[in-house]
Amino acid sequence: MSGRFISFEGGEGSGKSTQAHRLAEAMALEGHDIVLTREPGGTEGAEAIRSLLVSGDPGRWTAWSEACLVNAARADHVERVIRPALARGATVICDRYIDSTRAYQGAGKGLSDDALRALHAQTTGDLWPDITLVLTLPQGKGLARARVRPESASEARFEAHEAAFHARVHAFFEALPKAEPARCRAVNAQGSISSVAARVRAALAPC
Amino acid sequence: MSGRFISFEGGEGSGKSTQAHRLAEAMALEGHDIVLTREPGGTEGAEAIRSLLVSGDPGRWTAWSEACLVNAARADHVERVIRPALARGATVICDRYIDSTRAYQGAGKGLSDDALRALHAQTTGDLWPDITLVLTLPQGKGLARARVRPESASEARFEAHEAAFHARVHAFFEALPKAEPARCRAVNAQGSISSVAARVRAALAPC
Repeated sequence: MSGRFISFEGGEGSGKSTQAHRLAEAMALEGHDIVLTREPGGTEGAEAIRSLLVSGDPGRWTAWSEACLVNAARADHVERVIRPALARGATVICDRYIDSTRAYQGAGKGLSDDALRALHAQTTGDLWPDITLVLTLPQGKGLARARVRPESASEARFEAHEAAFHARVHAFFEALPKAEPARCRAVNAQGSISSVAARVRAALAPC
Repeated sequence: MSGRFISFEGGEGSGKSTQAHRLAEAMALEGHDIVLTREPGGTEGAEAIRSLLVSGDPGRWTAWSEACLVNAARADHVERVIRPALARGATVICDRYIDSTRAYQGAGKGLSDDALRALHAQTTGDLWPDITLVLTLPQGKGLARARVRPESASEARFEAHEAAFHARVHAFFEALPKAEPARCRAVNAQGSISSVAARVRAALAPC
């Protein structure tokens, strides 16, 4: 038996983490075996790598260093958490995954999507989500939300990147559901937490 | 003008660091512009990644996590230290580089040499040393030396790997100078520091 792998994607402040938690709680109450996790992170080692990525100056890492750090964390996470959970039939709900790498290090920092997909194939055995929910907000709105969060002081490295970087990331996420419709669905992230949660369930309903 | 890039390779306790220092000192006294550096490390970011790699349990990282961490550190090191030094005409002397990745994560942990070379091409713009000195010792001799070093308590993760792992690493370094003779030269690392230093200079003499 193999479980279902659901990823949440979107820019800062789009509500991914909140919605991933809500979905995990609701599905657990319905009796599903749920593993709620996040990237970068999800294992002890990957969380140590996360702290290198999310803190410090925006220019702390070169683009390829960043891509390698993200993949180092993901390789650990996939092998030690995601694959074992899927193998026992659990539903894995992950806050960010490969599409964040394509958005931030690819579209945002100019690395080739083909090269990032090739590295992903190596480091994860080419494990892709069954379904990816892309939370969408008008450009700039999410970042404004993210900058007032209490955790933003210690995890603000990406938020501190230049506006043009965020515009490229935003454009990638906007285009993704149209470019890869078999896997990715756009979810309008405006409105109350409950109304967005209802849209998330609707987007998952046909699965 | 482009300087010369010399790497030192070999198993633990082969005397790489000592010989890299000796060579750097001698060449600096002769008036060369020398940049002495090491991997994993050589920049602030790469040294932070080093601490994740060299401490903790042998099984702390999966093979691909380890390869990605090493490449994250190398990408930073190449872009911020090695390439700028070569561009100004300096001689770069580096204690470990790509061949250690091929030996430890490739031969030692089973990752494909082609995949590691492809990742190296992406992360460094395919920068290889002009000459690589491989310090060779009979199997087991270097590890015995390394285990009594004062720093071994805090940087002992690789030393603590199983004997079969070290045998595969040793076999890779033994074979390397024969497999890639245009770039790599074996240097017998037995004997006094001075006698090995003399062999290092002899191996570099024709360059």
